[in-house]
Amino acid sequence: LTANANAPFDVQTPALLVDQAQFAANIDRLKAKVDATPGQVRHRPHLKTVKSVELARQITEALDTDAITVSTLKEAEIFAEAGFRDILYAVGITPAKLDRVVALQRAGVDLTIITDNLATAKAIGDFCNQADCEIPVLIEVDVDGHRSGVLPEDSDNLLAIAATLSKGAELRGVMTHAGGSYDAQSEDEMRDCAALERTRTLVAAQTLREAGYLCPLVSIGSTPTALHSDDLSGVSELRAGVYAFFDLVMAGLGVCHINEIALSVLTTVIGHQRDKGWTLVDAGWMAMSRDRGTANQPIDQRYGLVCDASGRVIEDGIMISANQEHGILAVRPGSDRALPDWPVGTQLRVLPNHACATAAQHSEYLLVDGSGEVLSTAERFNGW
Amino acid sequence: LTANANAPFDVQTPALLVDQAQFAANIDRLKAKVDATPGQVRHRPHLKTVKSVELARQITEALDTDAITVSTLKEAEIFAEAGFRDILYAVGITPAKLDRVVALQRAGVDLTIITDNLATAKAIGDFCNQADCEIPVLIEVDVDGHRSGVLPEDSDNLLAIAATLSKGAELRGVMTHAGGSYDAQSEDEMRDCAALERTRTLVAAQTLREAGYLCPLVSIGSTPTALHSDDLSGVSELRAGVYAFFDLVMAGLGVCHINEIALSVLTTVIGHQRDKGWTLVDAGWMAMSRDRGTANQPIDQRYGLVCDASGRVIEDGIMISANQEHGILAVRPGSDRALPDWPVGTQLRVLPNHACATAAQHSEYLLVDGSGEVLSTAERFNGW
Repeated sequence: LTANANAPFDVQTPALLVDQAQFAANIDRLKAKVDATPGQVRHRPHLKTVKSVELARQITEALDTDAITVSTLKEAEIFAEAGFRDILYAVGITPAKLDRVVALQRAGVDLTIITDNLATAKAIGDFCNQADCEIPVLIEVDVDGHRSGVLPEDSDNLLAIAATLSKGAELRGVMTHAGGSYDAQSEDEMRDCAALERTRTLVAAQTLREAGYLCPLVSIGSTPTALHSDDLSGVSELRAGVYAFFDLVMAGLGVCHINEIALSVLTTVIGHQRDKGWTLVDAGWMAMSRDRGTANQPIDQRYGLVCDASGRVIEDGIMISANQEHGILAVRPGSDRALPDWPVGTQLRVLPNHACATAAQHSEYLLVDGSGEVLSTAERFNGW
Repeated sequence: LTANANAPFDVQTPALLVDQAQFAANIDRLKAKVDATPGQVRHRPHLKTVKSVELARQITEALDTDAITVSTLKEAEIFAEAGFRDILYAVGITPAKLDRVVALQRAGVDLTIITDNLATAKAIGDFCNQADCEIPVLIEVDVDGHRSGVLPEDSDNLLAIAATLSKGAELRGVMTHAGGSYDAQSEDEMRDCAALERTRTLVAAQTLREAGYLCPLVSIGSTPTALHSDDLSGVSELRAGVYAFFDLVMAGLGVCHINEIALSVLTTVIGHQRDKGWTLVDAGWMAMSRDRGTANQPIDQRYGLVCDASGRVIEDGIMISANQEHGILAVRPGSDRALPDWPVGTQLRVLPNHACATAAQHSEYLLVDGSGEVLSTAERFNGW
């Protein structure tokens, strides 16, 4: 902490801040919600958001689980190195990545992969036979048409993939991600997405079980559906990621309040264009990311919502535009407010549209307490 | 190279490719253009795009210059470590960063900083007096209203900043960036932007010179204006960055042809949704960035334009949507074409909207030749 009231943080900007207490509260909220929902589900948190061993440990301890989800093999390798042993790589595998999968398996990691098609299933089975290994695989199911996956009603395809996988690999079950929930317009719609995510994935599991496959794992998850599920019966594990930080997209969906967003970018005022009501800061899209996830929501936050250094929201203050290392702050179009006349050197926080994208622009988190003191730092990584 | 015709590159995907010959040709094009333009201008290439020591050396050798531009002090520190000694940090300084500036200066680096306001000028002057150093400073001029800078006609403000800086710092001249040129609609408009960039910056220099300041440096630059300037007389140095790679935004502006884009993301097919005409690949926004710079251009390329592994454009093939590690390829809306039915495992290239943003998502360049062979790798960095 510095003696300067305008610039309380003794750090170089831009910097990525995590409100430690809010981060913990957000994880606890997910745990409490799932604990209170019918079903016997285990958490398999998606770590693509944090990409940090330190924060991964905080999350898995709070959720009382050893299982994790990753979006890249680099994540799997780094978390394995840090001691995690039960990992789901939740992006459709390509044959060229199987060498890295089996290397992790041979290092003692229970790494599960996914696919949604016969050609890949055959490649996995052939690879297992050649390499004399048995890689666990989930079949990806498409519950809402937003991305990849087999339609749960397409029994022929499901059973063909299952039969092909079983010649060499270990068919462990089914998984889906209800990404369509990000387009929900209300709590009711998120509840509907959650119900559909569960029931349609169970349809696929049922098809496999009726054909004699054990299908022990039924894995689902997204932050909006995880926090709006009325029933998790039959689901074995839940994968959510962004809930730990939250962001403006989630706030726009009604999944969280603005003051529950635990992630922000600390920035410093470098100048003004007073005729235009602009304040220039040293965080541009390189610090915020180019993510404009709120662009199609009722409230467009442009490149982020402005707060003072303590995290108090400046009403109608947004980053209206961003260059690589310049952000332009102004009041949102139509507002009759004005930004405070912050002196050059003043530190501000900007809340991000999309926590995963903003965090990915940084190599370190600064964990801060409510008074703005930096409690610790946590390294984060990117790459494949 | 692999024996597989669908997947010629023996590398893990996604990966960032630079066509070595095209990269060199793009740099040569800028040099030839500037050589043929009236004026005595030296190149000070902006390295915020490449952020790589290896590529920085290729650029400065080809442009026959030792001077470079950076967008962060981290860049300044890394390039200084690599031997560069004449560096302009082209983002308005904050007082809290002056310690790092003087540390570089004391390590023998001629590091120039910029500001556009009196408060910062005073802080720089005071700092120089206290630290017993003389930091070179350029006054930033606003030629097109797109961002920061003093209006060139605002002589009172210009002279006040100059007078304040001169009490401690070294006033070295003026600079601008004609970012407004990115919104130009034609070659003529880019020519107009280039003329305005030069003449308005010279107005500011003239004001300072008439008041007795030497103002030795007049620094301008942007890729569209650098390649459309008819006259550089009176300009001492030119800063451009993205020209070395080019990208879809530059192609959309008419600054380059699609086949002159030297940067692409190599990706692999992981599946299909054939009913929808979708091909799923393992490059999402984490590999492409969230930059949608062509969204407001006549041709919206969504998350990028699809090419085969050799770099040949697939007509109307674009990445219509992107999740963190998934890209969805399809033909552009309204097209009556269809994508080829690429098998799982097929490698493709995707051309980026914005080279600076896409490169920033990666930690390494693979420099490739026309046949697709990887000639060498070059590390890149991010951060502040």
